[in-house]
Amino acid sequence: MRGIGNVGLATGASGFASDVGSPAASPSAAGVRGTGDMGTGPMEKVLADIHGAFQSHTSGSVASYIPELATADPDLFGLAVTTMDGLHYQVGDSQVPFTIQSVSKPFVYALALRDRGTDDVLARVGVEPTGDAFNAITLEPGSGRPLNPMVNAGAILTSSLVLGSDTEERFTRILDGLSSFAGRRLTVNERVFTSERGTGDRNRAIGFLMRGAGALRGSVDEICDVYFRQCSVEVTAADLAVMAGTLAHGGVNPRTGERVLDEEHVNHVLTVMVTCGMYDRAGTWLFRVGLPAKSGVAGGVCAVLPGQLGIGVFSPPLDEVGNSVRGVRACEMLASRFALHLLAPQGEPPHPVRGTHRGDALSSKRLRGARERAALARSGSAIVIHELQGDLVFASAERVVRTVRANLDGVRWVVLDLRRVAAVREPAVELIRVMVDDLAAQGTTVLFADPRAIPGVARLMRGTANTTRLPDLETALEHAEEALLAAEDLPTPPPTAHVDLGAQELLADLADLGEQAARAVADACERRSYDVGDTIFDVGEPADALFFVTRGVVNALAPNSDRTRWFRLSAIPAGSAFGEIALVEGGRRSTRTVVAQPATCEVLSVEAFATLLRDQPDVYNALVRSIARSLSSQLRQATLEIQSLEE
Amino acid sequence: MRGIGNVGLATGASGFASDVGSPAASPSAAGVRGTGDMGTGPMEKVLADIHGAFQSHTSGSVASYIPELATADPDLFGLAVTTMDGLHYQVGDSQVPFTIQSVSKPFVYALALRDRGTDDVLARVGVEPTGDAFNAITLEPGSGRPLNPMVNAGAILTSSLVLGSDTEERFTRILDGLSSFAGRRLTVNERVFTSERGTGDRNRAIGFLMRGAGALRGSVDEICDVYFRQCSVEVTAADLAVMAGTLAHGGVNPRTGERVLDEEHVNHVLTVMVTCGMYDRAGTWLFRVGLPAKSGVAGGVCAVLPGQLGIGVFSPPLDEVGNSVRGVRACEMLASRFALHLLAPQGEPPHPVRGTHRGDALSSKRLRGARERAALARSGSAIVIHELQGDLVFASAERVVRTVRANLDGVRWVVLDLRRVAAVREPAVELIRVMVDDLAAQGTTVLFADPRAIPGVARLMRGTANTTRLPDLETALEHAEEALLAAEDLPTPPPTAHVDLGAQELLADLADLGEQAARAVADACERRSYDVGDTIFDVGEPADALFFVTRGVVNALAPNSDRTRWFRLSAIPAGSAFGEIALVEGGRRSTRTVVAQPATCEVLSVEAFATLLRDQPDVYNALVRSIARSLSSQLRQATLEIQSLEE
Repeated sequence: MRGIGNVGLATGASGFASDVGSPAASPSAAGVRGTGDMGTGPMEKVLADIHGAFQSHTSGSVASYIPELATADPDLFGLAVTTMDGLHYQVGDSQVPFTIQSVSKPFVYALALRDRGTDDVLARVGVEPTGDAFNAITLEPGSGRPLNPMVNAGAILTSSLVLGSDTEERFTRILDGLSSFAGRRLTVNERVFTSERGTGDRNRAIGFLMRGAGALRGSVDEICDVYFRQCSVEVTAADLAVMAGTLAHGGVNPRTGERVLDEEHVNHVLTVMVTCGMYDRAGTWLFRVGLPAKSGVAGGVCAVLPGQLGIGVFSPPLDEVGNSVRGVRACEMLASRFALHLLAPQGEPPHPVRGTHRGDALSSKRLRGARERAALARSGSAIVIHELQGDLVFASAERVVRTVRANLDGVRWVVLDLRRVAAVREPAVELIRVMVDDLAAQGTTVLFADPRAIPGVARLMRGTANTTRLPDLETALEHAEEALLAAEDLPTPPPTAHVDLGAQELLADLADLGEQAARAVADACERRSYDVGDTIFDVGEPADALFFVTRGVVNALAPNSDRTRWFRLSAIPAGSAFGEIALVEGGRRSTRTVVAQPATCEVLSVEAFATLLRDQPDVYNALVRSIARSLSSQLRQATLEIQSLEE
Repeated sequence: MRGIGNVGLATGASGFASDVGSPAASPSAAGVRGTGDMGTGPMEKVLADIHGAFQSHTSGSVASYIPELATADPDLFGLAVTTMDGLHYQVGDSQVPFTIQSVSKPFVYALALRDRGTDDVLARVGVEPTGDAFNAITLEPGSGRPLNPMVNAGAILTSSLVLGSDTEERFTRILDGLSSFAGRRLTVNERVFTSERGTGDRNRAIGFLMRGAGALRGSVDEICDVYFRQCSVEVTAADLAVMAGTLAHGGVNPRTGERVLDEEHVNHVLTVMVTCGMYDRAGTWLFRVGLPAKSGVAGGVCAVLPGQLGIGVFSPPLDEVGNSVRGVRACEMLASRFALHLLAPQGEPPHPVRGTHRGDALSSKRLRGARERAALARSGSAIVIHELQGDLVFASAERVVRTVRANLDGVRWVVLDLRRVAAVREPAVELIRVMVDDLAAQGTTVLFADPRAIPGVARLMRGTANTTRLPDLETALEHAEEALLAAEDLPTPPPTAHVDLGAQELLADLADLGEQAARAVADACERRSYDVGDTIFDVGEPADALFFVTRGVVNALAPNSDRTRWFRLSAIPAGSAFGEIALVEGGRRSTRTVVAQPATCEVLSVEAFATLLRDQPDVYNALVRSIARSLSSQLRQATLEIQSLEE
């Protein structure tokens, strides 16, 4: 029995050859490669467990129809798994080369789909499981069309569909394609090719029968030669994991990043693997393992967990239908231990609508005057906000649509808050688009709060008027509010409007102290003007002044945790103030303030504030009380915000 | 051509019969039922589109082997869809009854699996696709086992496996089972049954062949009679949608809530539908539609979108292999328009680890003394917090495991924040459990912040020491901090420790004003004592006092948006104060304060504070300054919290 602790881990999206190394020159050395020199995380442990469970199994027989396969070491057993970000987990003889044989079939089928399109390929090769052995001579009655691309007949015909002006060019295209799937340059084992060609009469017979039936076109000998060469390409279990991983990854090689196959063809390839991949055990395989897969007579098996994993196994002994015994067992164990079956129940997803609010209860952080606040309280229910969450698939889109439709009374603006949406899948896009079109036709505007520019959202809005995409909920809400206020004849004041210092809410308490108190504050301030985009202060700068805005609008922004995005904490219009923290706590700024509309501020510096304490303590104390009140109200608001964000 | 606007929508988890009504007495009346009386949302529009697209198609022929089927109206066309919360969308003749025929096969297979278990059933009926017609007489060489349960041979044998001491009891069990799948009491069309029995010689022949081969046991006539009755059960397209929906919903009827089939058997049933469901077009169906499905010779088709949708279609004209022409077309259109193919690429999920923090940068909201703060700043990196998100499947669990392992240097407590995790699927549970076991073995504690008690988490922790589940991140962090401080010989002070009023941070500013200022505050306060669980004040109560905690701990709590859960805003120990808002703003409380450890507070009422203003304005103003500073610092903290919550 071989050592089982030899689990390797290799990362990197490119440079496959460098981090995995070239296939071991001596297969017998591979069994102990890397023992104990890599960490043993859960994935490594799991693979080692599986490897250990079946290494000593001795059932099955190595393929014997050509000497090159008959001499394979029956103890060889390699297992590899590729993740969607190109990480490699490997155990055992995962670097030992062997010929790909029938595992090439789905990948060459992929190349034919790419070169000819689905309709052309379907017209020439069927997709029905046969229940027959791989080398059966059954053709579709009438058309002579082979039943599917996984039996030899279909594979030979499929191979002939790959473009190329001559045999050489066609094979080069096939080898290039297989290499792209594997993420490294593959080569042909010429000895195996020569033997395959020497013993390939049954396949030639199938070729001639197909040509006789009008299904196959061209030289049968040449077409069969391409097919024999294709079967003689050398791969490793690690290669098969990457090839399967490319299908799992929607057609993009997870290690090289190369798009090898269009998305639309990926499910076609996986479909034939599901129904016909494991010879005449396809049904049993799907029942027990439940993953699209393909096996080959040299002992290779590849299996695909869509969106998640590519699996490659190599072990030469075959069962009576031609599948690798350890390959089948290893996949069965992996699938059953981790419930990876494609059709396994996945449990209930969370409701995609996390919360629904109206604009009279939830408003933007734009500070507004009393009339605007009253208008929003009165008419804000014309704005409805739905907080969505999770992965929007068809069923969740149906629930979104239903919830939106149940909350349309008096609504003119629908805000869909996508901050917590992981992805909007194609099926969801299509259904939500029908709703958006409907709403647009009724004059209702749909606003998407979509900070991460989710790809599906662009497709959702394509060609639909009355929809807008905004970078966050805050601006989406503000956008809806501005539209509502304009409709109520309360348009936002022009950016040039000036608001007297005396009208500042923060200075309201000073009224009790008489005219001269307000004048004292005015005298202590310094006037500064700013253009749009100016940063007034930034995070980390000393907090050394309070700013009363007398014209324009200033946004207070904060970064998200990894500082990749700034979101708005508040929009401060003329008549309001910011930076109070300076006067009570000092320290450093925790926000960035950026001018949104040309602004003028009356600036009260820490020094001037200190002078005020010395010369006019009453004014100073009244201002501190006002600031405390303002901070208290902001803290209350922040608590509400945290409440709504916590769940 | 029939009207196409007749789309109905019916809700409700029970009372199927009442909201859908009993099947229309006159089929011809069904075509116009409900025209225009229901809303037309996106789902209704989509179904009406599909119905309209194929209503006028006239290809195909109604089954003619018995008169009861031959007289079916070829114009009948009904379409129904059931969601996972039991909502029904219907269009056209979705309420017209017809006989279930072969659509019964997967459901009776489900009943056999339930009654006999997978191994027993597999030993008697294979799961390999045949490529043959449904009434082929092919049996597995040697065993005589029928090839799969979707051909007549396999279906007859499967039917014989349902438990029952006699024919009557077995059929009752089958009818009860089919009724549970449909969510209403189904009945047999006796005329069809009589005809089926009269023309069933081929099926009897198959039965005798199987008995001769030793595969079938019992009276062939009786077994065939049960099978003919099973095929003669009357259903509607709406019923088929619910039956398919029950499989989509993991075996639980989405309308009645009844568990009809164990989860472990659901994928077995779906598997045979995938490989053998659509007669000898199973491969083409999977290629084009990509959903597990089954059709019947009376024109019924059911299809399953796992986890999302059950689909039922009825239209009698059949294509040459026996599938409903409109049924196939309708499903093709639905699947291609919404990309519902089981194997369609699903795009990249978000990284499951949203952020990773160490305990020296992220701490609980428990207010702590200077020594504790210093200890956490110094040694807090022994606590690592991973914020997880999304739906944890196998691949995302692999990334979680990888990220946790990459952040283990010096770590003794791993906090997994599950607040944003929608679900932990079985495959993820298994892989993460391997990691948790490993960490536990190394003495590292794993804490789960899991407010919603996600089912997978309990399985994750089963039998593993050194793991704790806590209701939120806040208490998980506090738990880790307490353990760390205890390890640093800084155990939390005993709950009986008393902290003088003079040591209050909020009163530090008063030191400048001399001894007598502190005494003035002390004199203005009233002492109150509380027991664990006492609510000191609640949300909405008047804010009329400031509380200095001199003994014990008080939690400040806020509800989440739907008030189903309270989360902690801060834990206030002896030496700290709460309720400052009362003194500067008044108004109503926005938090609930609950005693966590037996507490004593010095309470400064609004009235006493006003007296202080009159009698000792210096003390009053100093206190307001302190409060402003405290509020400012709390606001800064709240802003950071919002920042970390926003993303």
